[in-house]
Amino acid sequence: MSNETVPKLTFWFEFASTYTYLTLQRIEDAAKSAGVELEWRPILLGPIFGAQGWDTSPFKIYPAKGAFMFRDLERRAAAYGLPFKREGILPVNSVMAARLAVAALEQSQGPAFCRRVSFAHWGEGRDISNADVLEDCARAAGFDPQALSARASDPAVKPRLRQNTEDAQSLGVFGAPSFTARGELFWGDDQLEDALAWARTGAMSPRNRSQPR
Amino acid sequence: MSNETVPKLTFWFEFASTYTYLTLQRIEDAAKSAGVELEWRPILLGPIFGAQGWDTSPFKIYPAKGAFMFRDLERRAAAYGLPFKREGILPVNSVMAARLAVAALEQSQGPAFCRRVSFAHWGEGRDISNADVLEDCARAAGFDPQALSARASDPAVKPRLRQNTEDAQSLGVFGAPSFTARGELFWGDDQLEDALAWARTGAMSPRNRSQPR
Repeated sequence: MSNETVPKLTFWFEFASTYTYLTLQRIEDAAKSAGVELEWRPILLGPIFGAQGWDTSPFKIYPAKGAFMFRDLERRAAAYGLPFKREGILPVNSVMAARLAVAALEQSQGPAFCRRVSFAHWGEGRDISNADVLEDCARAAGFDPQALSARASDPAVKPRLRQNTEDAQSLGVFGAPSFTARGELFWGDDQLEDALAWARTGAMSPRNRSQPR
Repeated sequence: MSNETVPKLTFWFEFASTYTYLTLQRIEDAAKSAGVELEWRPILLGPIFGAQGWDTSPFKIYPAKGAFMFRDLERRAAAYGLPFKREGILPVNSVMAARLAVAALEQSQGPAFCRRVSFAHWGEGRDISNADVLEDCARAAGFDPQALSARASDPAVKPRLRQNTEDAQSLGVFGAPSFTARGELFWGDDQLEDALAWARTGAMSPRNRSQPR
């Protein structure tokens, strides 16, 4: 057994991203089912979108795509049995949430914090740029909010968010959620299963061209 | 039986679109399996992208996205057991091909012509802005190339391509392949199954959040 290596997937995510909400509500269970270990890397899409010439969400810059995205999210959330609040701010300022996530992910309850932050915004319509909302999420995930906040501001921790974002860019990440495994990039909640398969096997599962999945 | 209505899906497609290639190679069988009748509507993405401020393929405007797309296409094509030629021209001038498709789709062999045109470009790396290539595709699908070309230029037929494109835009189509059923828009080869399910039932099939598909 000691020679077996556990397959790994790196998960690049941004709380302001609508599709990341779906992924955050299911990736822990999905990775566990697949026997894949996750590396959690919160990022900020602001600098990544800025490099593409965008100063806000592409869903605001391209209204037809934005209208599609909100309806698509509603349909997918319903298929997963999740609530979805269209009134979530787009794009919400997620810097504070992402900094806290970096600190939270030093602990085993880190993923629970991330799931709750995302759920607060897109599942409950709460504003995650608000420190009180983030404190509720920290508490609910078993953190002491003050201690978590102090750790997030620590000079040993704070630069990691920028580093994550730069690392993501250097791997070709241009949106969220994204996944990397064995040098391959996957993008979007609907590619989570493909990414997990790639982490395990170095290939996508063969697809039947004509059969409903 | 006479009271039963056959579920219908409208398929909006553009030969210059890479992801449309995957869909064209499988949509006939997939729709047949699902018991859904297809309405085929070739469109031009040029005017649709123009309305979004783009003068070429978004995969050229956003290089990180373009790099991802080509690799994603390779992976998906492999999973479907299809060849994929990166050297296909992006974006190829698809006006002549689309006009011929409008005329071909008046006949039962129309879908076969569309499938072959798409395969010639992205499966074989042939230039479908070339009239000789299109003649080969017409012949292979059982058409007389001269008669098809004449029909495509007929004043009763030629305006339909522009009409299709305008109709697509008015339904919120912003890319290809797109699918519409019961007032809902679906986008991308990976949403074909969802679109077929919606055409049948007015809902997406419930998804297990954590199980590999």
